Amino acid sequence: MKNFSFSRRDLLVGAGKLAAGAAVLSLGAGGAAREAWGYGYSSDFKYAKLDLDEVGQIAYENYFKRWCTSTVLAGLVEPLRKKVGGSWKDFPIDAYRWGHGGLAGWGALCGTLPGAGIVIGLVTRDTDTAEAMVNDLAFYYSYTELPSYTPKKILKAEIHQMTIAKTPVCHISVGRWMASEGVGFLTPERAERCARLSANIAMEAARMLNEWVEGKYKPRHRPLFNLVENGITSQNNCIDCHGQNVPAPPEEYQVLDK
Amino acid sequence: MKNFSFSRRDLLVGAGKLAAGAAVLSLGAGGAAREAWGYGYSSDFKYAKLDLDEVGQIAYENYFKRWCTSTVLAGLVEPLRKKVGGSWKDFPIDAYRWGHGGLAGWGALCGTLPGAGIVIGLVTRDTDTAEAMVNDLAFYYSYTELPSYTPKKILKAEIHQMTIAKTPVCHISVGRWMASEGVGFLTPERAERCARLSANIAMEAARMLNEWVEGKYKPRHRPLFNLVENGITSQNNCIDCHGQNVPAPPEEYQVLDK
Repeated sequence: MKNFSFSRRDLLVGAGKLAAGAAVLSLGAGGAAREAWGYGYSSDFKYAKLDLDEVGQIAYENYFKRWCTSTVLAGLVEPLRKKVGGSWKDFPIDAYRWGHGGLAGWGALCGTLPGAGIVIGLVTRDTDTAEAMVNDLAFYYSYTELPSYTPKKILKAEIHQMTIAKTPVCHISVGRWMASEGVGFLTPERAERCARLSANIAMEAARMLNEWVEGKYKPRHRPLFNLVENGITSQNNCIDCHGQNVPAPPEEYQVLDK
Repeated sequence: MKNFSFSRRDLLVGAGKLAAGAAVLSLGAGGAAREAWGYGYSSDFKYAKLDLDEVGQIAYENYFKRWCTSTVLAGLVEPLRKKVGGSWKDFPIDAYRWGHGGLAGWGALCGTLPGAGIVIGLVTRDTDTAEAMVNDLAFYYSYTELPSYTPKKILKAEIHQMTIAKTPVCHISVGRWMASEGVGFLTPERAERCARLSANIAMEAARMLNEWVEGKYKPRHRPLFNLVENGITSQNNCIDCHGQNVPAPPEEYQVLDK
């Protein structure tokens, strides 16, 4: 077996953009060398600063018919159609509806996140930037009390609880909220919660993109932070699922504490 | 609290397409009535029957630079560019790279699945069909021994194990395989596994789309099966994570066994 170890010092964000992630990958991520890290690509989709309240309102209203992925897309794409036009005009918002409920109801990745990611990827034209922004959004989703969005006019139900998901996984995120609020999944309350959450995520994506389009976006979190810290694609709350038995990587993969 | 109960008989697939899912939703899915279930949308993206070996080969080769989401997209989009052209010519495959590793390395939804879903959604122009196909793909991903793809020429490493994921969640899926093979994440073996898995998923998506374009696609699984059976967006192996303490929905939501 190959020996593969690197020190935490190697992972400090150093000179150059996203050096930590690049360091990880150049040190032997399955032989994927530095050139596999980030690169640009062309895209016809433009961005202009959006009004966050408008984004949130459109997302909230759309949820009950379109569900999370197409709803976050609507919140971003419909204003972009008006402000920027171009390729957004033909963008088929409903072609992504299968993302709902963690992928066709499988409870995996909350559909709000790929919805936002799709717009982020299309406008930033750089894998480093898109990666950093989606990573920041996943941290926001996982560690903010949500839903915090307050609609001007409630469309479905009164709800009371906000929860911290600690995960981008739909099943765990919605389950935690359902237990807190005391309702089942197929209820108006749960639908209301997901509608407001969709508004929150669409608004946070727009907030970052608004910074980015003015050249002011700086990643809040290190890209690939979880992978590097935990030795596997992961969340950051291992004990919540694994209890005392958190699997350890095999010997050949070690992060040395020096 | 509202009482909300329905019998399993209501959920049998009856006359009409996807009646089970429609029955669930019309019976009170948070007030989302039948019209919220399925509808069509327009899209400029066309499909033509693809050669599965070509799809698999292109996906496998692309993985090491593009990672799972953009890789499955490449396996489908590059042949479609040649065969069909049109809107595929400008399709920015790399704009979706953030989907890798379960969303920017968070280990949530395996990036192969939204990669396939994006093409499925764009060509089928009907939310019912896209939903059913993505659901079938999630069942295939979760319950097939993978990766079964055998490259003509191995690009990264010899690997030996195939595993059944029982989940579309990257962390669990790759972790199970890593434990079986005895390797860490940042190894050539794990990269080889994800490259072959990407080929498998791209090929399965193409297989279904090939049936669909000839009018022969029939869903193998009931859409929203998991949600209906388990009372929450979910996988189907509750005990694996919850052990003896599978949370029960509150009283107001019951599936009656009659």
